[in-house]
Amino acid sequence: MKIIKGGVTAPGGFLAGAVNCGIKKSKRPDLALLYSEKPCVSVGTFTTNKVRSGSVELCERHLRDSRAQAVIVNSGNANCCVGKKEIKDAEVITGLAARKIGLTKAMVLIASTGIIGRPLPLAKIKNKIPALTKALKKDGHLFAKAIMTTDTVHKEKAVMIKIGGKLVKIGGAVKGSGMICPNMATMLAFFTTDAAIEKTALKKAFKESVADSFNKISVDGDMSTNDSAIIFANGIAGNKTVKKGSADYSRFSNALKFVSGELAKKIVLDGEGARKFVEIKVLGAKTKGDAEKIARHVADSSLVKTMIAGGDPNWGRVSASVGSSGVSIKQNKLSIYFGNKLVMKNGAAVNVSRKALVGIFKKKDIEVTIDLALGSSSSKVWSCDLTEEYVRINSEYET
Amino acid sequence: MKIIKGGVTAPGGFLAGAVNCGIKKSKRPDLALLYSEKPCVSVGTFTTNKVRSGSVELCERHLRDSRAQAVIVNSGNANCCVGKKEIKDAEVITGLAARKIGLTKAMVLIASTGIIGRPLPLAKIKNKIPALTKALKKDGHLFAKAIMTTDTVHKEKAVMIKIGGKLVKIGGAVKGSGMICPNMATMLAFFTTDAAIEKTALKKAFKESVADSFNKISVDGDMSTNDSAIIFANGIAGNKTVKKGSADYSRFSNALKFVSGELAKKIVLDGEGARKFVEIKVLGAKTKGDAEKIARHVADSSLVKTMIAGGDPNWGRVSASVGSSGVSIKQNKLSIYFGNKLVMKNGAAVNVSRKALVGIFKKKDIEVTIDLALGSSSSKVWSCDLTEEYVRINSEYET
Repeated sequence: MKIIKGGVTAPGGFLAGAVNCGIKKSKRPDLALLYSEKPCVSVGTFTTNKVRSGSVELCERHLRDSRAQAVIVNSGNANCCVGKKEIKDAEVITGLAARKIGLTKAMVLIASTGIIGRPLPLAKIKNKIPALTKALKKDGHLFAKAIMTTDTVHKEKAVMIKIGGKLVKIGGAVKGSGMICPNMATMLAFFTTDAAIEKTALKKAFKESVADSFNKISVDGDMSTNDSAIIFANGIAGNKTVKKGSADYSRFSNALKFVSGELAKKIVLDGEGARKFVEIKVLGAKTKGDAEKIARHVADSSLVKTMIAGGDPNWGRVSASVGSSGVSIKQNKLSIYFGNKLVMKNGAAVNVSRKALVGIFKKKDIEVTIDLALGSSSSKVWSCDLTEEYVRINSEYET
Repeated sequence: MKIIKGGVTAPGGFLAGAVNCGIKKSKRPDLALLYSEKPCVSVGTFTTNKVRSGSVELCERHLRDSRAQAVIVNSGNANCCVGKKEIKDAEVITGLAARKIGLTKAMVLIASTGIIGRPLPLAKIKNKIPALTKALKKDGHLFAKAIMTTDTVHKEKAVMIKIGGKLVKIGGAVKGSGMICPNMATMLAFFTTDAAIEKTALKKAFKESVADSFNKISVDGDMSTNDSAIIFANGIAGNKTVKKGSADYSRFSNALKFVSGELAKKIVLDGEGARKFVEIKVLGAKTKGDAEKIARHVADSSLVKTMIAGGDPNWGRVSASVGSSGVSIKQNKLSIYFGNKLVMKNGAAVNVSRKALVGIFKKKDIEVTIDLALGSSSSKVWSCDLTEEYVRINSEYET
């Protein structure tokens, strides 16, 4: 596997473009299109929030036959909580985009991100769709920028692998910061590949890669109404079609996991106000579910997150958070490590130099390991610190 | 019912005092004693965190026969996560205090709050116990101050009621800020009454008043290792003993609920960095459990809390939080009110002036009402905003 330049347009046959249609007052691009010149197999996964955007509803509907080959994205407005207009607007937008690029309506997906409760400025969007389709080119950079909201950097990644002697590429672009949590949260993620792959194989590989990356991250414990992750595979690499269970499948799946993992890390590091990347690992749990629940509870704890922001190795907050996760644990078996330093052993403090711990907390990457010593299941969650900057950004978001 | 001056020493027969023993470097009082001159009926309720302080362990043990009549409290050190020493130290401290005031060891309770993972400075505490017992007086002010950690104000309240022609008083003092959540969280709460009341009646009244006050508040979603709430009733008011189910019981129980409710509100308003008091009410739920779960989820949401800090009436964050609580709801039945203004009706935005909403958000007390329209159960949670100040305090706590 080789890391290559670019993102969603790195694989063959994909074009992207973006324009400003007036949703973002900043004049930055806020309407983007990703398009495959050839037919695709496409699958997606969406927010489990019970309050969902009409864009998500329609997107899921258009993905039913897995034949979509384009997605139009607007940033700045979530198209959510405005009633029946949501779906209607999404239908108008995808319909118009489809006509302009010569596809059927159901072949165009839609994703929205931004403020909830305001109707989409439909006329403005419609006006710009012709210009948007004309802006399509072999450069995904602007697409990755146009999908941003409070993100401070655009996020893209691409890799190349060999499958049966053919070069196959996988690319991705994501946005997401704040509201990141349980089931892949406030995030839009778009992946492309020129691999030829069966629908069931693509579905499995994508599901697993999302579970192992975006579903492992936590910025603030909330989940958005608009989370969407979509992958398009257009097969123009000309490889023998990848099938489930084959060696080719493993190769493809591992590469996809790498790309989604790298993009998930980028999201955490761009968490609103975040300065530190934190991995919370839980070992020795009775069940995978227990390990997951504790890792997430600790990762979401405001007291743990502010401790990391302050660079203060106060592991008592970690043990208190483990104890209040709702999972049955034994205090006298609980051990905690900061980096590779044991700080609590069998429920009690270990005599370790505060200086060494402060050193660990000065690093940009911090690893907290929690050993329950009750079984052999484990899990991890990626998180970031909670800074005054996070509060500032989120207090001022709308204005 | 009449509100009277003072706190834990307002009821007859209670004395309190405090000294500095050197745990707090600030020289502020950090060792406190509350004592009843007459035998008591006493009950308590404690943290459900699986990681607990030795002080909590011993306190619970000493309360088994409900005959405790004093409590010694230290602030600045949680006596937690230091191993077997915790219980031993707690035994030494309660034993010494008991000898000095002429009680048996089991009649003296203990509570600790502060940093986790550091051994109690036992010698310092022992040295000061004689001075502490000598400092006992008919003034609970210093006691309420000595139990504080990051609290910015001390919190006490007392009321007087009539039971069968006799004047009966109830007083309380609490500490708590930050880490406030599910089951009464980082909080020490001490109540006294000179009522004569049966043990089972006191137990029921106390349990209900804690459930309706301290268990309804949320500052940051964490729960402490040291939460303790204790009540002493010494009967010297001379009323006919209050029994369960009587009119006297209702009178006593309501007064106790009032005192604990007022003290719980004080805790929320003194939440670290908090500037606003928020009541999240959920109506129309299928079950009480559903209503409670949603109210707490919304109250704990960092995005909702920062929105309130910023004075920004972005109700989309509330609807997104309701949708991600894990409770099954219908988006097209969901309505949300800010104050008495309907902002979302049946899942869609209502045309309401932003100016009016900003006005509501400028108030110190903010009410958010969520109507699920699915049933007739309801619940409420009290919370506060999340400010940059919270992050600053919690980043710097240890240093």
